Amino acid sequence: MNIALDMMGGDFAPEQTVKGIQLYLSESVSPAFLLLLGDEQIINPLLKENNIPPDRVKTIHAPQIIGMHEHPTKALKEKQQSSIAVGFHLLATGKADAFISAGNTGAMLVGSVYSIKTMAGIQRPTISTIIPRENGQTGLLLDVGANADCKPENLNQFALLGALYAQHILGIDNPRVGLINLGEEEGKGNILAQAAYPLLKNNKQINFIGNIEGRDVFLNKADVMVCEGFTGNIILKLAESIYEITKRQNIHNEYFDRFNFEDYGGTPVLGVSKPVIIGHGISHGKAFKNMIALAQKMIESDLMGKMKESFEGN
Amino acid sequence: MNIALDMMGGDFAPEQTVKGIQLYLSESVSPAFLLLLGDEQIINPLLKENNIPPDRVKTIHAPQIIGMHEHPTKALKEKQQSSIAVGFHLLATGKADAFISAGNTGAMLVGSVYSIKTMAGIQRPTISTIIPRENGQTGLLLDVGANADCKPENLNQFALLGALYAQHILGIDNPRVGLINLGEEEGKGNILAQAAYPLLKNNKQINFIGNIEGRDVFLNKADVMVCEGFTGNIILKLAESIYEITKRQNIHNEYFDRFNFEDYGGTPVLGVSKPVIIGHGISHGKAFKNMIALAQKMIESDLMGKMKESFEGN
Repeated sequence: MNIALDMMGGDFAPEQTVKGIQLYLSESVSPAFLLLLGDEQIINPLLKENNIPPDRVKTIHAPQIIGMHEHPTKALKEKQQSSIAVGFHLLATGKADAFISAGNTGAMLVGSVYSIKTMAGIQRPTISTIIPRENGQTGLLLDVGANADCKPENLNQFALLGALYAQHILGIDNPRVGLINLGEEEGKGNILAQAAYPLLKNNKQINFIGNIEGRDVFLNKADVMVCEGFTGNIILKLAESIYEITKRQNIHNEYFDRFNFEDYGGTPVLGVSKPVIIGHGISHGKAFKNMIALAQKMIESDLMGKMKESFEGN
Repeated sequence: MNIALDMMGGDFAPEQTVKGIQLYLSESVSPAFLLLLGDEQIINPLLKENNIPPDRVKTIHAPQIIGMHEHPTKALKEKQQSSIAVGFHLLATGKADAFISAGNTGAMLVGSVYSIKTMAGIQRPTISTIIPRENGQTGLLLDVGANADCKPENLNQFALLGALYAQHILGIDNPRVGLINLGEEEGKGNILAQAAYPLLKNNKQINFIGNIEGRDVFLNKADVMVCEGFTGNIILKLAESIYEITKRQNIHNEYFDRFNFEDYGGTPVLGVSKPVIIGHGISHGKAFKNMIALAQKMIESDLMGKMKESFEGN
């Protein structure tokens, strides 16, 4: 199993990326082999300095960097030697089984769709976030920004993708799917939510429990919470800010500490044919470690195979 | 000045409504005269019991009640003797200068539009919420649910209505207006936000500062935060749930205590020609007191006149 890791993506790369590798290799029982993408003149000395075992990793020279504010499509096209372009090339040619980067999110989404393609039957790939629950468990919210405008069928597909992820990666049996809405009753909502409701209700592949409201997001009501990427992005960033507020307010609380989104690593791109994980720009070592572990779990559980199977009949 | 108050609306009416009247009359320097709408056989004994001075209030018999789950338009038509229908009648005929109810929100919105009409030039009335800030101040978020689907011009109008409310009621000079969006840069967002941005940017009547993200909602970035009612409703209910979580988690914190939305009373319907305030279903005495005080402030500041003026040239 080969996992490709962008060493140059993120605000604290490559130092924290190497820390993540170190943590992963020391904590994992059967670690995957890691392909490290970036400028070898920068990376190799760092690996040595941090005592990364040379037989567990291989540096692949990718001297170009796609900046956080570059135009995704243009940058991917012009910078073929960038760590992100090289990562997708490895993934597309089967030399890597998963690809992780905390770099330019747009380039990661564009690369996912154009280099490795969406799965058959899936209209739009989606990105999600973990939502901490007071009961110690976690919920899954999607889409959180890849799809600002959606059609009803997109939400229906996100629901199934999210349910499969919740089941096979988060270990939630028969996950409850809720539609984020401004009221509980069927018929409530904007045009999109009103049209998505019957699709979700009639979808026999998911356990749809109906509408859930803003107040239910942090409660143990639905395991998978579905909305378009505009609302989802607002919820995610608002939840992230709550953690920052509790820190500033000097609040020490086990539940709110779980709003530290770094703990969850990155978000996988769901609906594409191979595991791609996008990290937060501010990722530190722990986040990189968690992303590598998540990629391994996605490969070992054959999540992609299960998704393909589920969408085959559709 | 006559303020009409629905005595039968809300989960804890009429007992907590009377408590609110008591608080208002004892704390206000120059209280308005209150018209109390409801079943006089229930209300009058309660007023006596709570020592409400008879010269400061007048009961207006309205024996019917519109339930929380009744269909708004149908109920308003069929129950002409309901406290909500009577309230709008008083307002429309000039016998009351403002109307407050914690009853059926839909009926309050429908009544606002059909009994007292929207102001000239305004396409859709809107409802807002106060958002507490860490610096002790408050921001204003709108729309929070009256308009689940919006056109770009609706958001532009909400921005001006919100700015006038922030200036004349919240006392914020030259309030900064932000467009809630999933990214900071111009051009980001769903189709609606992308189209609303240039309208807001070119609106000389407001101080537009650009896009704000979910993480900025609780920060001191924009005083008036504009979005369609779907997203706004999710944010409001999520913020409400944060207060409940802090209570359950036994967190005592001055900032999070301000997430107790009861402290802010109700939300005014902005864009209609007279002051209408909708209370939360769970309103207690303090909320009723605050709503009456808010109605008085809306009348005294001639907020409606200022709104009419601002929209006249449009």
